[in-house]
Amino acid sequence: MRERLHTVIFGTSTRAGKNFDLVLLFIILASVLIVLLESMPSMRARYGEELSIAEWGFTIVFSIEYLIRIWISPKPLRYIISFWGIIDIVSIIPTFISPFITGSHSLAAIRALRLLRIYRILKLSRFTSESQMLLQSLRASYYRIMVFMFFVVMMMILAGTAMYVIEGGENGFESIPASIYWAIVTTTTVGYGDITPTTGLGKILSSIMMILGYVIIAVPTGLISVEIAKQRGHVINDNECDACGHDNPSGSVYCNQCGKEMTNT
Amino acid sequence: MRERLHTVIFGTSTRAGKNFDLVLLFIILASVLIVLLESMPSMRARYGEELSIAEWGFTIVFSIEYLIRIWISPKPLRYIISFWGIIDIVSIIPTFISPFITGSHSLAAIRALRLLRIYRILKLSRFTSESQMLLQSLRASYYRIMVFMFFVVMMMILAGTAMYVIEGGENGFESIPASIYWAIVTTTTVGYGDITPTTGLGKILSSIMMILGYVIIAVPTGLISVEIAKQRGHVINDNECDACGHDNPSGSVYCNQCGKEMTNT
Amino acid sequence: MRERLHTVIFGTSTRAGKNFDLVLLFIILASVLIVLLESMPSMRARYGEELSIAEWGFTIVFSIEYLIRIWISPKPLRYIISFWGIIDIVSIIPTFISPFITGSHSLAAIRALRLLRIYRILKLSRFTSESQMLLQSLRASYYRIMVFMFFVVMMMILAGTAMYVIEGGENGFESIPASIYWAIVTTTTVGYGDITPTTGLGKILSSIMMILGYVIIAVPTGLISVEIAKQRGHVINDNECDACGHDNPSGSVYCNQCGKEMTNT
Amino acid sequence: MRERLHTVIFGTSTRAGKNFDLVLLFIILASVLIVLLESMPSMRARYGEELSIAEWGFTIVFSIEYLIRIWISPKPLRYIISFWGIIDIVSIIPTFISPFITGSHSLAAIRALRLLRIYRILKLSRFTSESQMLLQSLRASYYRIMVFMFFVVMMMILAGTAMYVIEGGENGFESIPASIYWAIVTTTTVGYGDITPTTGLGKILSSIMMILGYVIIAVPTGLISVEIAKQRGHVINDNECDACGHDNPSGSVYCNQCGKEMTNT
Repeated sequence: MRERLHTVIFGTSTRAGKNFDLVLLFIILASVLIVLLESMPSMRARYGEELSIAEWGFTIVFSIEYLIRIWISPKPLRYIISFWGIIDIVSIIPTFISPFITGSHSLAAIRALRLLRIYRILKLSRFTSESQMLLQSLRASYYRIMVFMFFVVMMMILAGTAMYVIEGGENGFESIPASIYWAIVTTTTVGYGDITPTTGLGKILSSIMMILGYVIIAVPTGLISVEIAKQRGHVINDNECDACGHDNPSGSVYCNQCGKEMTNT
Repeated sequence: MRERLHTVIFGTSTRAGKNFDLVLLFIILASVLIVLLESMPSMRARYGEELSIAEWGFTIVFSIEYLIRIWISPKPLRYIISFWGIIDIVSIIPTFISPFITGSHSLAAIRALRLLRIYRILKLSRFTSESQMLLQSLRASYYRIMVFMFFVVMMMILAGTAMYVIEGGENGFESIPASIYWAIVTTTTVGYGDITPTTGLGKILSSIMMILGYVIIAVPTGLISVEIAKQRGHVINDNECDACGHDNPSGSVYCNQCGKEMTNT
Repeated sequence: MRERLHTVIFGTSTRAGKNFDLVLLFIILASVLIVLLESMPSMRARYGEELSIAEWGFTIVFSIEYLIRIWISPKPLRYIISFWGIIDIVSIIPTFISPFITGSHSLAAIRALRLLRIYRILKLSRFTSESQMLLQSLRASYYRIMVFMFFVVMMMILAGTAMYVIEGGENGFESIPASIYWAIVTTTTVGYGDITPTTGLGKILSSIMMILGYVIIAVPTGLISVEIAKQRGHVINDNECDACGHDNPSGSVYCNQCGKEMTNT
Repeated sequence: MRERLHTVIFGTSTRAGKNFDLVLLFIILASVLIVLLESMPSMRARYGEELSIAEWGFTIVFSIEYLIRIWISPKPLRYIISFWGIIDIVSIIPTFISPFITGSHSLAAIRALRLLRIYRILKLSRFTSESQMLLQSLRASYYRIMVFMFFVVMMMILAGTAMYVIEGGENGFESIPASIYWAIVTTTTVGYGDITPTTGLGKILSSIMMILGYVIIAVPTGLISVEIAKQRGHVINDNECDACGHDNPSGSVYCNQCGKEMTNT
């Protein structure tokens, strides 16, 4: 029986395994919906009782599932301390603790982590293949984007400091961190409007920052686009040095930047 | 006569057919303008009478057109229950019902669906060809964008939940759904400013989200750009597996992801 | 003398011609600065006199330049009714009329059109070449972007109408045009926050629109990027049909969309 | 000893040199954090004493480092007047002056320039190579982006002027510069909402500007993407004229724009 349960819970090839995943997916989505609704004061006031019952039902289902997973695991301890094992237990516990602690909305919110469990269920080959492709594109341009972000963050800190000096506390720029927050809100073009420049010089500096941000946003787009094009089979010569990441002309034997021998030529 | 009307209404090759389309285009645009103006309180107060007369005029024209379309259709019922047939009737009815129901501005707004009828008229070969190309680019990257959106939406839900815990109701983050709405407004860089973080920790988390959103926006741009480049004749090797969508190296006989035989090599 | 003036004013090859352009550029920039400063109430209050004198000085210089341009033109009338001739006269007149009309700030603002004259002066070969390249990229993707915009504008009108029905006048969505304005502000991610959804359904629809807008913004970027890549010498096969604009596979003799013979194969 | 210090401070090959860089990096980050915290009124009130002591500690460390750098420099004067020499002294001085000037928060903020010193420490070959690549991409498209920006800024000035005429001072568009600031905030999609159009005509013009800005943002993205693709080894024929920057068809002997002989064919 333990073996059969293993096939149903971990496998996707059998009919039972597929149905189990589908039912679990539905239960997870429903339980996350309950978490969202429970956080709304109007819903809690009107349907508090019903939501609480539903939540307990889902928690019991998840608890049984958790215990079965431990039972059927070849190495139970390894599952318990694994990433998914921790997610599983952490998204059950809050319901059991809640009766003893009053008014702990933070605790209840933790159950939203159940959402992550969806990813485990989506074992569809196409979904996996595409998400792998996307992650690969991001991973390949990760270092480049980090270097770019280093300059952007430095610019934001210095621009924020300059605005703090120019505008001062009476216009909302009450500290350097607050001004850096403003610089981030502005450069990323979010523009809440909770802090806005009021002095002439402040407006001029902001304008320059906005126009710069407008151009600078093109850089990560370019970096990732090229990486996606590469992943999708575009003809790009791949002569990156493994040691320093420099792109060398095709046919290079030694990296022209760090001098190490190229392995992929 | 029925046949001649068919040529005029459905055809575009004859002079009469082209003129009919042009007149209909003008009438649709004018009638939509009337719908817009009628919804403005100041306009309704001053020109209510005139707008009402114009609206009745357009409705009668559209009703006659609708009846003719039924009459000349080889299969009238099929036209009536078709997408365009439903759009046609739904955008006429509100005017006929309005005298019996008072103050129903929702009903009047439905007539804006007339706008969709423009698309049917634009049978220009270049317009069709270009819109086909755009739709093709979107359709080809549809699954990829959905996978990407899956991660973005999950990130938005978890970030929204975290902000609900950090900021709490007194700062506008009154429920998890409200916080998720804030996360969407922030990550897409819309940034209304109706809900903004006020605590230090909230501002730090928002800043991280904004910078992440700034980079993440590059992904759909990259996906679609590559697809458009492909549509426009760029040299990309097309070795996508029909079964799982994985891109294989050129010359592959079996998909290296799902093992199925490749059909397009 | 008329001939020498012609070389100075229209030519760029002589030293005098270059100096004339440089001086004129400086005068235009200075005069536009005066227009900007004059519009500021605080500046007008303090330096009103000085600004007025400077403005009259610049106007006299531009008037003399205008008269000389007429005089040295081989066909004076053609210059007067040309685009640049109209810009020249329109940016002089307001100063002459202003003493007779009081408080006409609109009239004064017209002089900002002087700014356009800078473009005429920038006859630098590299500037011309690059701006030609940019315009060419935009022109080549013009029709495609228009088709795309057709769908975007239709979506904005229908989404605006839906929000008008959902939110209604009491929440700021007081008419369909106002709601369309909100839809434009939202989809383009500007997000002023002057009108924001307040009902639950309104927030859900807005969220969907923002996420859609987030993806849709990728389309013009892709269209223009591909066009720029083409301009910059990327290997793209150019088999666009001259008649309908459809991209055909390389080696096509007839367009596979409209059937016309291809001229560029 | 002077020689040994030189190896430690300027070199990265020895163990001591690497450790020195790591310690310095940590000290710089900690000292910048102190500058940020000191600017926050709540922090200054509670930990003013401790922050001041820490600041003096860091300043003494930096002063000693500065003196050593002068001492071990082969040409001390050249170091003092170099970019990094000036950054070094300017980020120390404020602490020494502060006791004599009261309430000078601007002076204290200057110390944030210490942040720039991080860049000098990051001598990692990969970081240098990647940042070089990014700068190269920006430099290569610099002129193009400037030409593009010329048109964008002209559009912003003219649109700002038009809005000043349409909306006028009572709606927040109190001067042409204020309206240009609004045009920048709008076109870059920042959208603070501190100034928003209120008249119908103003809303129509803004809507057009937003939609235009939506398309126009694609241009720098395209320019930089193509440049990054080129840097990353994409097959692009490089037939740019050195004299005027025009892209010529491959195999050109003379630039077809300015007629100068091509050097890179």
